[in-house]
Amino acid sequence: PIRLESLSVPSLLKHVKGFSAEAERPAMNGVPQRGKLLTLDNMNPKVKRVEYAVRGPIVQRAVQIEKELREGVKKPFTEVIKANIGDAHAMGQKPITFLRQVLALCSYPELLKDNQFPEDAKKRAQRILEACGGHSIGAYSASQGIECIRHDVAHFIEKRDGGIPSNPDNIYLSTGASDAIVTILKLLVSGEGRDRTGVMISIPQYPLYSAALAELDAVQISYYLDEDKCWSLDVKELRRALYAARQHCNPRVLCIINPGNPTGQVQSRQCIEDVIRFAKEENLFLMADEVYQDNVYAEGCQFHSFKKVLFEMGPEYSSKVEMASFHSTSKCYMGECGFRGGYMEVINMDPEVKAQLTKLVSVRLCPPVPGQALLDLVVNPPQPDEPSYATFMKERTAVLAALAEKAKLTEQIFNTVPGITCNPVQGAMYTFPRISLPQKAIDKAKEEGQVPDMFYCMKLLEEEGICLVPGSGFGQREGTFHFRMTILPPTEKLKLVLKKIKDFHLRFTKEFS
Amino acid sequence: PIRLESLSVPSLLKHVKGFSAEAERPAMNGVPQRGKLLTLDNMNPKVKRVEYAVRGPIVQRAVQIEKELREGVKKPFTEVIKANIGDAHAMGQKPITFLRQVLALCSYPELLKDNQFPEDAKKRAQRILEACGGHSIGAYSASQGIECIRHDVAHFIEKRDGGIPSNPDNIYLSTGASDAIVTILKLLVSGEGRDRTGVMISIPQYPLYSAALAELDAVQISYYLDEDKCWSLDVKELRRALYAARQHCNPRVLCIINPGNPTGQVQSRQCIEDVIRFAKEENLFLMADEVYQDNVYAEGCQFHSFKKVLFEMGPEYSSKVEMASFHSTSKCYMGECGFRGGYMEVINMDPEVKAQLTKLVSVRLCPPVPGQALLDLVVNPPQPDEPSYATFMKERTAVLAALAEKAKLTEQIFNTVPGITCNPVQGAMYTFPRISLPQKAIDKAKEEGQVPDMFYCMKLLEEEGICLVPGSGFGQREGTFHFRMTILPPTEKLKLVLKKIKDFHLRFTKEFS
Repeated sequence: PIRLESLSVPSLLKHVKGFSAEAERPAMNGVPQRGKLLTLDNMNPKVKRVEYAVRGPIVQRAVQIEKELREGVKKPFTEVIKANIGDAHAMGQKPITFLRQVLALCSYPELLKDNQFPEDAKKRAQRILEACGGHSIGAYSASQGIECIRHDVAHFIEKRDGGIPSNPDNIYLSTGASDAIVTILKLLVSGEGRDRTGVMISIPQYPLYSAALAELDAVQISYYLDEDKCWSLDVKELRRALYAARQHCNPRVLCIINPGNPTGQVQSRQCIEDVIRFAKEENLFLMADEVYQDNVYAEGCQFHSFKKVLFEMGPEYSSKVEMASFHSTSKCYMGECGFRGGYMEVINMDPEVKAQLTKLVSVRLCPPVPGQALLDLVVNPPQPDEPSYATFMKERTAVLAALAEKAKLTEQIFNTVPGITCNPVQGAMYTFPRISLPQKAIDKAKEEGQVPDMFYCMKLLEEEGICLVPGSGFGQREGTFHFRMTILPPTEKLKLVLKKIKDFHLRFTKEFS
Repeated sequence: PIRLESLSVPSLLKHVKGFSAEAERPAMNGVPQRGKLLTLDNMNPKVKRVEYAVRGPIVQRAVQIEKELREGVKKPFTEVIKANIGDAHAMGQKPITFLRQVLALCSYPELLKDNQFPEDAKKRAQRILEACGGHSIGAYSASQGIECIRHDVAHFIEKRDGGIPSNPDNIYLSTGASDAIVTILKLLVSGEGRDRTGVMISIPQYPLYSAALAELDAVQISYYLDEDKCWSLDVKELRRALYAARQHCNPRVLCIINPGNPTGQVQSRQCIEDVIRFAKEENLFLMADEVYQDNVYAEGCQFHSFKKVLFEMGPEYSSKVEMASFHSTSKCYMGECGFRGGYMEVINMDPEVKAQLTKLVSVRLCPPVPGQALLDLVVNPPQPDEPSYATFMKERTAVLAALAEKAKLTEQIFNTVPGITCNPVQGAMYTFPRISLPQKAIDKAKEEGQVPDMFYCMKLLEEEGICLVPGSGFGQREGTFHFRMTILPPTEKLKLVLKKIKDFHLRFTKEFS
C-alpha cells in the first residue's frame, strides 16, 4: 500500500478509502459526497465479528412491528410478545417492595423522615448512605465497590456455602454480571497464533461469551452439552474438546453456566466435582456463571455453588484451583435488570494479578451505585425479626413458585406437539426445545439466505407476534434446530404463547411438507 | 517454546509457568504450593500497560491513611481531603432536589400517590415509567437507551445549539461518558505495525484516553497544550504531532476535551473552527469530550459545542466531518457521578458502521436505567411555568456560582506562592498548577524510584493529609512538574487546602534547597 505521507494532498485524496467513488455519487445540497473515513471495511475487524443474537435482527424486527401496530398497520395479532430475553419486569413481574423502598430512601433521603416506610428499610438505607462519599449515592464509590457492601456479599456467600469463608477483598462489584465476565476474560487473554488463549464454552452457550471472545480475539473452544441427557455436561466431552483445541491454541479457561442458559439444566454435585477435578488436572482457570442460583425448580435438583464444592473437595483443590464466580441482581426472584448490579468473587488469584484487576476496573471509576445498593439488599434481605420480613418472603416465594409452575407447564405443553421435544426446565428462565424442520423449509430458508431456525422464528414473529431467539444464536449440533424462549410471561399469557407456537408449528410443518 | 501437548503430564508440569519454583515454596496445610495459572507474566500484556493515575497508588495510600486514622494512629492531621477526583457529592455538594425526587418516584411508584411531591416531578416520573418495559426501571431498556429519553436528548442539543437539528437515532445513552468514549475508540481501532490506528490526544490528558488506547493496542499520538497561553490548543502543534506520527502509524482520530481536563481551559470559537478544519483536511474522526459544558467560569469565556461550530461552518463541513460528542450526568451542576449516566451523539457516521455500533452496545444489554432517568431530567429540567422551577434554578445557580468563586480563589492563592504558577481555571473542575522542584528533591525522588511529582504529592499526603494527582499521571512537558487538584471542596475547606499546600510547598522547597 502507498504511504500517505509521501503524497501531495490532491494525489493523496485518490487513495483515501471510498474517495474514488465520489464522481459517481450524487451531490446533496450542492455538496459532493465523499466516502466516509470510518467504514465497514476499515473499522475494527474484531468488533465486526461480534454477534449477539439475544438482541439481534429478530428483535429489531419485533420493535419495528410494534411501531407498525401503533401506527395502525393491520396484523394477525394485536401485541408483540417478547419472549427473547430474561427480562422479568418487562413481562409484568412486580418489583419486590422492600428493595424499592430502600432505593427510594437512598435516592431522596428526605423520605427518611416519612412514617410510611418500615424501620428496617430506613436502617438499610441509612447504612448504605453512610458508606457513600458525602452520604450520597451520587458520589463515585471505590472502583471495587462500596466496602460495607463487599462485606455483606462475603457474608452472604459464607452463609450460602455453609460457613466456607469468603474474603471481602476478593469481591468485586460490577455493572451486571456481563461486565465482570468480560473483565476476567480480558485478564486471561494473551498470545498470538498457536499461543492464543483458548476459552472453553458450552454449546449451546449464552452469546455474551462468544461475543467477548470475538472482541478480545481469543479462541472459542466449544464443548457440547448432551441434549439426550437433559443438557448435562460430560467430562469426556470437555476432554475431547480440550485435546483437539491444544493442536491450535493455548486453552486456559473453562466457562460453566449453572443453572444453564439457554438450556435450563441444573448441574449435579457430582458433575461439578468432576469439572473441578478436570480443571485442576488440565490447568484451567474456572469461570462459574451462577446468576440463576435461586432459579431451581425441578424436584431433586439443587443449586451447588462451585466455590462450596471446591472447598469441600479439600485443600488440595481449594488452595489451588483459580476461579471466578459471578452473580447478578438481574435474575432470581428480583429480576432487577435495569439497575445493572452484580458481583464476582475471585478465588486463588495471584495477588499481582489481582492488583492488575483492581487497576483495570478503576479506569471505569465505579459500577453504578444504585445497582450496588440494590445488590446489598439482595445479599442482606429482611430478617425474621424485622418488619418487612413477612411481605418480602411472600413476594419472593410467589415469584419463584410461579416460575416453577411455568417451567413445568412449558415442558408439558411443548412435548404434546409433534416435532417439538423439550427437556425439563430444571432451572434458570428459559426453555430450549428442539424443533424438527421439514426439508422443504430448510431449502426455502437457504433460498432466502437465512439459517433455517431464523427463518422459522421470523415467520413465527410475522404470523403470531411472538419473538423468540433462534437456536443458531446460541450454537447447536449441526443439523439440529432449536429456539430459546423465556418462561417469564404471566401464566395466562404463557399459555397463550405456547398455544400460538403449537398452532404455528403444526401449520409450518404442514406448509412445508 | 515447547508445545505442551507433546509432553507427558509430569514433564509438562515443569513447563507450567512458576511451577519450577515449587520446591522452594513452603508447604501450607500440608499441601505443596504450586505456581499460579494466571500470573503477571502470562496475563494480557495490554491490560498490564494500562495506567490510571486518578485512582492510582496515591489514592490507595490515601484510603490506607484514612483507615489508620480511624484506628487511632496519630497523624499531623485529622482528616484526608481527597481532591484527586471530580466527585462533587463526596466533597459535600448536595444533590439537586428535583432530580432526586423524580428518581425516588421512579424507584418506588407508590409515592406517586404522595402529596409531598410536586406535580412536575410526578409528571416526569410517570413519563419515564411509561417508557420502561412493564413500567419499571428494573426492566432492561433498548441497548441504545430509552427512546423517549433519546428524543429528549436530541431536543436538548437542538436548543443548546440554536436550532441545529439533532436526530434521536444518532443518540446513544451510555454508562457515564467513559463507556461511550471507549466504545467509539473500539470501532476505530484496527491494523498492525505501521497500519495501527493512531489517536491524537492532548498532553496533559485525562488518563481514560491513554488507558483505553493501551488496552486496545492503538498508538497514542500526543499533542501538547500551550501552558504559556493558558493551555490553549494550537493547530500548528496538532500538525507537528500528526505528521511525525504518520511515519509509524495510521492516524485516524483526534480527541479534544473542552472545557479541558485536567487543565481547565475553555476553547475559543476560532480555535474550534481551526480544529474542525484541520480534522477535515487531514481525514480525522473527531471525538469531542464535552462533559464540562456547563462548567465555564471565566469572564469572556463561553462554551461552544463542536457540533454547533461544525454546522455553522456550512455544509462543506457539516455533511462531511465524522464526529462523536460526549456528555455525562457526573459533572456540571448536578455532579451525579454514582449514577453513571451519559450519552453520545454521532454525526455523519456511515450507516453500516452505526449498525455495528448498535450491535456492539447490545452485548452489554443496556446502560443503567436509573442513570438514563437522571439524564432525562438533566436534558429536560423544570420549565419556568412548573412548580419546581424556582428551587431548581436556585440550587443550580448556587452550585455554579460557588464553583466560579472557587476557580478564581484557587488561581489567586496559588499565584501568591513562589514556585507555583497557575493558569486561570476558565472551566471544568480542576486546576493544574506548575510547581518548581529543587534539584535535590528531584535527585531524592530518583533515589527512591519515584517520579519527582509523585514524590512531592506522596509527601504532601503524608504530611498534610491532602490527596492530589501528580502531573505525570496526565502527561506534561519533559522537565516540568504539576499536580491536578479539584476545586470542589466547600469554600472554607478549599481555603484550608490551599493554605496547607502553600505551607507545604514552602517547607518542601526549603528542605531540598
